[in-house]
Amino acid sequence: MVTEPNNWGRFGPEDQRGTLNLLTGERVLAALAAAVTGQVLCLSMPVRRGGPRLRGRPEPQHFMSIDGADFAAGTRPVGAGLRMADDALIVSAHGTTTHMDALCHMWEGDQLYNGHPAAQVHSYGAKRCGIEQAGGVVARGVFFDVPRHLGLDHLPPEFRISGDLLEEIAPVGPGEVAVIRTGWPLVWDRSPEEYWSGQPGLAASAGRWLAERDVAVVAADNAAIGGLNPRQLSDEDLADDLHLILLHRHGVHLIELLWLEELSATGRSDFVFVAAPLRLQGGTASPLNPLAIL
Amino acid sequence: MVTEPNNWGRFGPEDQRGTLNLLTGERVLAALAAAVTGQVLCLSMPVRRGGPRLRGRPEPQHFMSIDGADFAAGTRPVGAGLRMADDALIVSAHGTTTHMDALCHMWEGDQLYNGHPAAQVHSYGAKRCGIEQAGGVVARGVFFDVPRHLGLDHLPPEFRISGDLLEEIAPVGPGEVAVIRTGWPLVWDRSPEEYWSGQPGLAASAGRWLAERDVAVVAADNAAIGGLNPRQLSDEDLADDLHLILLHRHGVHLIELLWLEELSATGRSDFVFVAAPLRLQGGTASPLNPLAIL
Amino acid sequence: MVTEPNNWGRFGPEDQRGTLNLLTGERVLAALAAAVTGQVLCLSMPVRRGGPRLRGRPEPQHFMSIDGADFAAGTRPVGAGLRMADDALIVSAHGTTTHMDALCHMWEGDQLYNGHPAAQVHSYGAKRCGIEQAGGVVARGVFFDVPRHLGLDHLPPEFRISGDLLEEIAPVGPGEVAVIRTGWPLVWDRSPEEYWSGQPGLAASAGRWLAERDVAVVAADNAAIGGLNPRQLSDEDLADDLHLILLHRHGVHLIELLWLEELSATGRSDFVFVAAPLRLQGGTASPLNPLAIL
Amino acid sequence: MVTEPNNWGRFGPEDQRGTLNLLTGERVLAALAAAVTGQVLCLSMPVRRGGPRLRGRPEPQHFMSIDGADFAAGTRPVGAGLRMADDALIVSAHGTTTHMDALCHMWEGDQLYNGHPAAQVHSYGAKRCGIEQAGGVVARGVFFDVPRHLGLDHLPPEFRISGDLLEEIAPVGPGEVAVIRTGWPLVWDRSPEEYWSGQPGLAASAGRWLAERDVAVVAADNAAIGGLNPRQLSDEDLADDLHLILLHRHGVHLIELLWLEELSATGRSDFVFVAAPLRLQGGTASPLNPLAIL
Repeated sequence: MVTEPNNWGRFGPEDQRGTLNLLTGERVLAALAAAVTGQVLCLSMPVRRGGPRLRGRPEPQHFMSIDGADFAAGTRPVGAGLRMADDALIVSAHGTTTHMDALCHMWEGDQLYNGHPAAQVHSYGAKRCGIEQAGGVVARGVFFDVPRHLGLDHLPPEFRISGDLLEEIAPVGPGEVAVIRTGWPLVWDRSPEEYWSGQPGLAASAGRWLAERDVAVVAADNAAIGGLNPRQLSDEDLADDLHLILLHRHGVHLIELLWLEELSATGRSDFVFVAAPLRLQGGTASPLNPLAIL
Repeated sequence: MVTEPNNWGRFGPEDQRGTLNLLTGERVLAALAAAVTGQVLCLSMPVRRGGPRLRGRPEPQHFMSIDGADFAAGTRPVGAGLRMADDALIVSAHGTTTHMDALCHMWEGDQLYNGHPAAQVHSYGAKRCGIEQAGGVVARGVFFDVPRHLGLDHLPPEFRISGDLLEEIAPVGPGEVAVIRTGWPLVWDRSPEEYWSGQPGLAASAGRWLAERDVAVVAADNAAIGGLNPRQLSDEDLADDLHLILLHRHGVHLIELLWLEELSATGRSDFVFVAAPLRLQGGTASPLNPLAIL
Repeated sequence: MVTEPNNWGRFGPEDQRGTLNLLTGERVLAALAAAVTGQVLCLSMPVRRGGPRLRGRPEPQHFMSIDGADFAAGTRPVGAGLRMADDALIVSAHGTTTHMDALCHMWEGDQLYNGHPAAQVHSYGAKRCGIEQAGGVVARGVFFDVPRHLGLDHLPPEFRISGDLLEEIAPVGPGEVAVIRTGWPLVWDRSPEEYWSGQPGLAASAGRWLAERDVAVVAADNAAIGGLNPRQLSDEDLADDLHLILLHRHGVHLIELLWLEELSATGRSDFVFVAAPLRLQGGTASPLNPLAIL
Repeated sequence: MVTEPNNWGRFGPEDQRGTLNLLTGERVLAALAAAVTGQVLCLSMPVRRGGPRLRGRPEPQHFMSIDGADFAAGTRPVGAGLRMADDALIVSAHGTTTHMDALCHMWEGDQLYNGHPAAQVHSYGAKRCGIEQAGGVVARGVFFDVPRHLGLDHLPPEFRISGDLLEEIAPVGPGEVAVIRTGWPLVWDRSPEEYWSGQPGLAASAGRWLAERDVAVVAADNAAIGGLNPRQLSDEDLADDLHLILLHRHGVHLIELLWLEELSATGRSDFVFVAAPLRLQGGTASPLNPLAIL
């Protein structure tokens, strides 16, 4: 049903939401039925310095512009006694913290997903396919806990998850969110150097398997959906690059650097998945705190 | 039932989540029943320069570190042809964009909500009551569309919403989110100067009415929950300050600078309210894109 | 001698320093002779929020990442007792603080000064004519204190300084720095709105007069060398635009937003002018603290 | 003559400039006589990502907010054809690029240099001893090219330069700038890991020798004036810590992370040293491009 390159026939040349268009009200209502206990889990890592990230990426920086220590040291309160803390955040989301990729994040040639001219992504931000187009995601989440399925703590760095392996674990359908665990974030605490030695991820066959099933979003706990070699690059050629298969050719939004350890411990295989990317105008991504309603 | 100052008896001295503790799985499941059509609305304003904000606050800044124009102008693709866009965001959320306040954002004296020492909020961030403690919010949202109730486009700047007026509009109960519309963001497009001439907001009586009902969150489309005078300060004394009543004394998280115009157009009075603040460690707030599932 | 457009015949197609090439060792030694008392004056405004700037430009932001208040409030010192303060600066120099423009800052058509392709100024920074090419400026400064010459506190906003007026005030020669006072920064403290009502500056004839004299740098206390109308734009067409005449066509570096009030009070007409722009690789400008050695 | 701790008797409790007070007009004029050829050398490293820095420090970030690639890709020029490039810089100067330390940068106990309360250094910046107090430095620079003196390319990481060794190389007097080369920046290009394995620097005896001679500034090409161990900390106790001896007890401004290789190649032993720190209000440091006029 889906064809490469680019899914133009389907959503048309003006589409900037890709497979998020599949999130109809009907599907949202159906998805809510996946909630059983009502427990809400955060699936993101903390936004802070010192956490898992791709080597060389600028870490999030957080500054306090006024804080409690200032008042303790004698700074005068506002008005009759009001005290407050204020801060600023600097964040480059890709490769540094849990985030959703916008459809403008990656492409080949001169066109973004669905034929939008790549030159419209310039210093003023993305005029097409920016993250502000994504809106909210409320969908059934299907959990592919690959290391648990294989009896491992985490996948080894050279492991590539095939479409057949996904097929073995669970069915997933149109408008659903495929949540894929590699366990790789566990490695960071043991050793950042080991974390940077490569990363497990999806094989091209898994990307095609997911695209064929019309998932709304692919969300993983690794840094690049696909695997990485020790130079932090993918080994696939352009035809098989995971970002190009999913984001560029099929308009599938991607979520990366999830934290899925508590979710894994629940043993749940599906749940309500909610993600609300910031409406950062022209942004290539948004830092994100996806929720699982169990 | 609730008493001022501070709600210590209730959640105990180590509590950092305040009334978000009311979001039990049972309540979450009940809240999901408020979804009727499954339509998902974003309740946030875009994150960008030039939008409604408090005068003098640093606007969000968004920079592209690589973009499509670079490739169009001859920058070499990665590897065999991969092209990408990457960016950075600088944001001070208070007063500049839709956000949730952490419990460490405001206080009087030397203690935050529930007795945490204010000096623990220092340049390394908030060691207590930071926004990373909030977790996800999934609750029934109750809509107080005040101007619609009064037959106005938006409230005038000096208007203060009383507890009696809220009572007149809708009941709200424990663990629910009170979503309050003033319509004030509509003024921005007409004139930033008029936007800065003051702001409508809650009167102290409304803050107390909401606290008594044990709402989980108070969320409004103005900049400060309470009203503002032309100097952008509140006219209430400390006893009646809305942030102190709600955030400081009762541990009620606040969401500000919402965009509620589409929600108002639906005529809906309740819905599922979802908010997923970034787990910004030690943060005093998180930029936010709250969702209404209708 | 100099011809428009662009001064290619003179410094050749690879030149990235423009008239700074005139700063030979011989001229530097001669310039040092202008020092009489040895007093050193800073000619810059403070880098901070709240100072004179063009409307709408992002102000400098300064954050402390650790400070004395933190230690006063109980933060543990480093090692056996060392305490320190550290900070971060975010600055967009144009229009916000004293700075030197790089030769890549402005152009018409597809080429920078001296034929460098403008497309080489991209998201990775300027590959040609970045501010890191400027190096240090040590030259004789010639002071054109225009309001003092005319018996005014400051020039009115619509005032345009002609070449004839400069000629009347002082001679200036090759490799010297023309320091031009309008007094406009004095207006800021009276009223930012008045400051933004327009700005006095050089007329095109003054730009040509300076270019003909082969000055090394033109340095002024207004925001744009040329004058500005109330919309903060120049009224000149491209042929007469001051940045294009000086920076683009003749390779003259520009310094803007100086603070010249103490210098004016000295009554000095020449001095040693020193400027040391940060070697910000690929930068379009550097914040700057120029010195006058009197 | 000088006494520890703190030099209060000398400049008095309100002094915020320390030994920069020694830069009298008379001394400045005398210093200018050190210029022989008039050649001007920049003594700073480029401000950019990827250069020598202390491990873990946030690197400078440079963003273009509009650039030539945007116009090449179709962005509309301003007005009738004006094109421009604009940018932003984020910089934490300590440990990342050439900079001057303010007197508020380091202390022990509760007081900065000369008795100023350390609590006055808070989130709004340093109210005392900020870098904006430094003003410009024009002084005779005395070059201590230690590796050249010892016949080495660079000092080994565990090398500590004693006062006796400085004495052997050159005399230095009141109000002069001691410029000290270790050659350590050369190691960066060979291997960042080796650069981080430790750093050569001054021994406490050298700090005392310099303080006794009343130098105005101590400027070095290493990261911390003193040496560093592989954990990037100094091995000295508080009594012998170089920052405390020089900056804290004697009010001597420090300049770090210089690039002295071209200066070394000239064989010059003295010159005019000029430094013009940005007047960053309340700043703990300023990025810097010191000049040597040969």
